[in-house]
Amino acid sequence: MPNRVLSGMQPSGRLHLGNLLGALDNWKALQEDHECYFFVADWHALSTNYADTSHIKEFTHGLLIDWLAAGIDPNRSTVFVQSSVPEHAILHLLLSMMVPVPWLERNPTYKEKQEEIKEKDLSTYGFLGYPILQAADILLYKPDSVPVGKDQLPHLELTRELARRFNNLYQPVFPEPKEHLTQFPKVTGTDGRKMSKSYGNTINVSDTEAEIRKKLKTMVTDPARVRRTDKGNPDVCPVYDFHKILSSSATQEQVNQDCRSAAIGCIDCKKMVADVLVERLSPSWERRASLMARPDDIQDIIRNGQNKASIVAKATMKEVNEAMKI
Amino acid sequence: MPNRVLSGMQPSGRLHLGNLLGALDNWKALQEDHECYFFVADWHALSTNYADTSHIKEFTHGLLIDWLAAGIDPNRSTVFVQSSVPEHAILHLLLSMMVPVPWLERNPTYKEKQEEIKEKDLSTYGFLGYPILQAADILLYKPDSVPVGKDQLPHLELTRELARRFNNLYQPVFPEPKEHLTQFPKVTGTDGRKMSKSYGNTINVSDTEAEIRKKLKTMVTDPARVRRTDKGNPDVCPVYDFHKILSSSATQEQVNQDCRSAAIGCIDCKKMVADVLVERLSPSWERRASLMARPDDIQDIIRNGQNKASIVAKATMKEVNEAMKI
Repeated sequence: MPNRVLSGMQPSGRLHLGNLLGALDNWKALQEDHECYFFVADWHALSTNYADTSHIKEFTHGLLIDWLAAGIDPNRSTVFVQSSVPEHAILHLLLSMMVPVPWLERNPTYKEKQEEIKEKDLSTYGFLGYPILQAADILLYKPDSVPVGKDQLPHLELTRELARRFNNLYQPVFPEPKEHLTQFPKVTGTDGRKMSKSYGNTINVSDTEAEIRKKLKTMVTDPARVRRTDKGNPDVCPVYDFHKILSSSATQEQVNQDCRSAAIGCIDCKKMVADVLVERLSPSWERRASLMARPDDIQDIIRNGQNKASIVAKATMKEVNEAMKI
Repeated sequence: MPNRVLSGMQPSGRLHLGNLLGALDNWKALQEDHECYFFVADWHALSTNYADTSHIKEFTHGLLIDWLAAGIDPNRSTVFVQSSVPEHAILHLLLSMMVPVPWLERNPTYKEKQEEIKEKDLSTYGFLGYPILQAADILLYKPDSVPVGKDQLPHLELTRELARRFNNLYQPVFPEPKEHLTQFPKVTGTDGRKMSKSYGNTINVSDTEAEIRKKLKTMVTDPARVRRTDKGNPDVCPVYDFHKILSSSATQEQVNQDCRSAAIGCIDCKKMVADVLVERLSPSWERRASLMARPDDIQDIIRNGQNKASIVAKATMKEVNEAMKI
């Protein structure tokens, strides 16, 4: 049996290039030779967004479509929505009984996020406990490994600690999931800062060709290169960052030279990036168009995913209840 | 429509006389003219007993039988087990997102219980959050009122605060449940201390007549009355406490006099209590015998209760999800 992998994403907006090149490309590679479970963590989104939930449903649906358009194959991978599988909430409740509060308080991202997101009240019980919900999400499917970035390692460690604690207290039910360390390339946004929904500087997987070409045209470049005849410095140019990720090394070499000598201008350079991007995203536009023409199929995919996930989740909860004798 | 009432009990052992004279007599009175939901809080029991869950299933089943034997009528009242209705865990998770941790830390019973129960590790996330689970248990059924002892008032207040917070953040879904203040008579155990499972001094509703007469025989009395001819002091006699709760005022008066004058001995006095107790408990022995002869009916009662509770819980969760737009 192939190794099982589980991963999730919060429905906080449309999928952008940063997500695509980081998580999604990795998921697509994984689904080739793993049994994959990918879920939209809509309950998780509440831990920071409980005060405004108006977009959760729309974002959840949009994210699923984005995944499928990006190439997640529902015939290979199980794609589902967290809130459609009540076992996530049940296992969260059971695990919460055996987690010492200090385990959560010492979670490095707990204080960090509270500092970072000053505009929201994150002193809530749910925010403190979100690593438990994450542990429940993971352990329910007994994955062999979980794709994580370096910053997520403390959470995965807590998941393993919880698995050990459960196994010791009752009976061995949960294998400890290994980390599948994922490189997330730093993707620059159109304003030169890190690409992020909250900065409004994203190129989205769902953007049209026209939108992408327009976003590229107004993208920030080397601020010192004001005129066409000025020589540029690719090292400080966000557009060149895109070349580094998307273009061939030959093209990168050429652009590097031609920018420094002012042989090409920013408009030419941006057009090259736009062309590569359009080529890169074309298959997903085709998949999206074909999907949107079959809304019933989307519903079927969501329902099938829920059913497949539920079977695994219920089987695990049966073991959990037997081990705990409840 | 009659007022709706909800109450629960943790499955921590057999129902004893203290529970019967406090909670159960009140429940029986309530079911005469209220729509009652009574549930065994087996998930709640984990908040203090996660380290040893070996008896939860047995206690849960035993408690249900005890209730029915004591006179809870499954044709009038909905009797169910918390863990058979997953909506309790789901609403707990959703509410947890909007509860500030300080609301829980200032809960007076939180620190008190931690001080009181030193032999268990109660520094867990689940123990901190148990008023949220309690709020979910209550709000799911939108009761008009909840029978509580005075010590439970802060929890009910937190439930109301949470109802208000939810209604303000999203849409009005939850009515604020009123308290139905219940007098819990102080019932003395066979050793003269408060009757409590943890002291092993209980008279259980499930005890046989022989067991009850035996427990009474060895019960502590006025320690100064050593010989039959010594005059006794009912004011310090635990057996007289039973008379005060169970016997007629005429009998109480008579026993009081005859003890002080040594006209009766402790054995006579205890026999009188045993007789009253046996009379009091006989109907429940009959109901128990009749129930135990029909195990399939017990299963039906449990299933029916689950179904009736689930219908209400699902309807509430539909409103909750609509209000939160998830």
